[in-house]
Amino acid sequence: MISRELTEADLHCLEIGAAILGTGGGGNPYLSKLRALEVMRAGHSIRLVSLDELPDDAKVVPLGGIGAPVVGVERIREGREGLRALWALERHLGFAADAIACEEIGGANSMEPLIIAAQAGLPVVDGDGMGRAFPEMQMTTYSIYGHKSTPSAMSDPHGNVVIFEHAVSELWHERMARATMVSQGGSSALALAPMSGAFTRQFAVPGSYSRAIALGAAVITARSQHLDPIAAISEREGGRLMFAGKIVDVRREIDGGFVRGEVEIEGHDAFAGSSGNIHLQNEYLIFRRDGVIEVIVPDLIVVLNADDGLALSTDMLRFGQRICILALPAHELLRTARALEVIGPRGFGFPELPFSTLEDVDTAASAD
Amino acid sequence: MISRELTEADLHCLEIGAAILGTGGGGNPYLSKLRALEVMRAGHSIRLVSLDELPDDAKVVPLGGIGAPVVGVERIREGREGLRALWALERHLGFAADAIACEEIGGANSMEPLIIAAQAGLPVVDGDGMGRAFPEMQMTTYSIYGHKSTPSAMSDPHGNVVIFEHAVSELWHERMARATMVSQGGSSALALAPMSGAFTRQFAVPGSYSRAIALGAAVITARSQHLDPIAAISEREGGRLMFAGKIVDVRREIDGGFVRGEVEIEGHDAFAGSSGNIHLQNEYLIFRRDGVIEVIVPDLIVVLNADDGLALSTDMLRFGQRICILALPAHELLRTARALEVIGPRGFGFPELPFSTLEDVDTAASAD
Repeated sequence: MISRELTEADLHCLEIGAAILGTGGGGNPYLSKLRALEVMRAGHSIRLVSLDELPDDAKVVPLGGIGAPVVGVERIREGREGLRALWALERHLGFAADAIACEEIGGANSMEPLIIAAQAGLPVVDGDGMGRAFPEMQMTTYSIYGHKSTPSAMSDPHGNVVIFEHAVSELWHERMARATMVSQGGSSALALAPMSGAFTRQFAVPGSYSRAIALGAAVITARSQHLDPIAAISEREGGRLMFAGKIVDVRREIDGGFVRGEVEIEGHDAFAGSSGNIHLQNEYLIFRRDGVIEVIVPDLIVVLNADDGLALSTDMLRFGQRICILALPAHELLRTARALEVIGPRGFGFPELPFSTLEDVDTAASAD
Repeated sequence: MISRELTEADLHCLEIGAAILGTGGGGNPYLSKLRALEVMRAGHSIRLVSLDELPDDAKVVPLGGIGAPVVGVERIREGREGLRALWALERHLGFAADAIACEEIGGANSMEPLIIAAQAGLPVVDGDGMGRAFPEMQMTTYSIYGHKSTPSAMSDPHGNVVIFEHAVSELWHERMARATMVSQGGSSALALAPMSGAFTRQFAVPGSYSRAIALGAAVITARSQHLDPIAAISEREGGRLMFAGKIVDVRREIDGGFVRGEVEIEGHDAFAGSSGNIHLQNEYLIFRRDGVIEVIVPDLIVVLNADDGLALSTDMLRFGQRICILALPAHELLRTARALEVIGPRGFGFPELPFSTLEDVDTAASAD
């Protein structure tokens, strides 16, 4: 497999891109980036391999951190959790991994596979299972399109190792793994059953790392040239500016291990006189303008600081902040009927709301 | 190994004896008895093997149910949870079990090993890891005297299987297993890493099944002969009647997954004018008479219905009930300094209370 080696600059770009694709959640990539830099400086190379390069029978292990983002920020990692999880899985199943796959390019879990793969001397596939961030494991394209993610192996900073040998469904796997992770203190690493190269090529969201790195590079370039980083993001991603204004209310509560809430925004500039509302469940899920839904999950809702284009996660929102709201189209793999059952409005408890793509909303608006 | 086959009558006796040794907790053995009878009637034999018969190198798997007693009463079992757990463990470690061991003779977990062993065609060792009931896994003589209970395998009624491959301590194993069990719905089966026959012979509380069955038989005999069943229990076990009276207050609350509470008793008959108090944490832990500790964990505090000698679990206590309180001496394996660290007053959050055996309290009282 031909691979390309990432540089320190790539990691800085990835941090920015991953925060944007996190759509408010996914955990802060900053600390994970520091750990990735450390691993790199210790002499390990971080290598990306494109989906096209994967042999059909390659054994690709999806792998990442599992935990509460807030705990992830405060708790120091032991450093080899992921490696222990990978080794436990290899031992249990009697195989050797050929490559590592990212489950979630948005947020901190963009960095975790890089760190663990570098430690293990394996390349990371240039793709992921979400093309953004989602809160639960069964929400990957891998699970949606039929990969059975057990047996899987989990390790924590203490050195405990648990193998989920068989789950009767992807949702049961998620439930058991989450409960075990909480008992381990709130931040563990989880390696999932290997996928074939052929399956990965077909069902991973392609090019996620390249995309996130290019996105971050576009922001950095725009800033250095005193251009609008928000326009740069929108242009690169085929996105659309949905709203600009000032946050006038933020309501957030923890409910069943998730952050749920509403953000109210008073329109400014071109949006003066309008009011915006974002419904969030860990990530930003629904954007309404004057009560009408304009963007809905799985399309991406990105909240950016108006001044510098910094992507804001849900915990960073404050009264009085000036923000811009961008919508980016979700990858087609996330928009099929099969995917929408899991990661569409229904999957998040809104069976009454149909999914309309950004493009549909555009067309409808033009027809008005 | 020479084994003796249990009869239906043995199971009825065991139910009574296990409830007495449950010291208020351990879960209700009645429903488990019905399942044991069902397995027996389906043609499986339930065989007991004495500790003396175990070859040094026999592989003995401690095994039982893990869950909340209240859930255990309400939730219908799938029936082969334990067998799946045992098989998963054997597969993971590549061995074949020679015998099954009971972890906890008090309550429902006296029956579980019988059911699973019968299904698997294996004998059950006549001994256990507690000689009574305790709320957590690390509280067995097996764990206390050095057995590492991981890798272990857990299965639930749905068919999910989890392997705890490595826990950094017995307490961590307990924490992770309990959280996973809760995520599975509250009643699962857990098979622990095998012990050698030599270790089991040395550190199991010996003869637990024979003892519980004989205890139940003594109660049944006393009742049929219109003799006092409470005196029969006390005589068989070298126990002592500590108090008799009427419950005047019961306070119970759920705290961190455990039932904690206090029971106040007004003395009757020989105890008229005295007041009794029981502190409970799942099991009855401390008995005080007029404010002075007379029995303390790990010695056994047994609460019996005054009329018929029925053992009362903590959830059965009601205002106005007439009860007798018996104290039974704990096995010497539970009274060593090493054991008291885990299952003495300190292990239950009372580092300031020393353990005094029943016999010490007797001597002190005589010296007064």
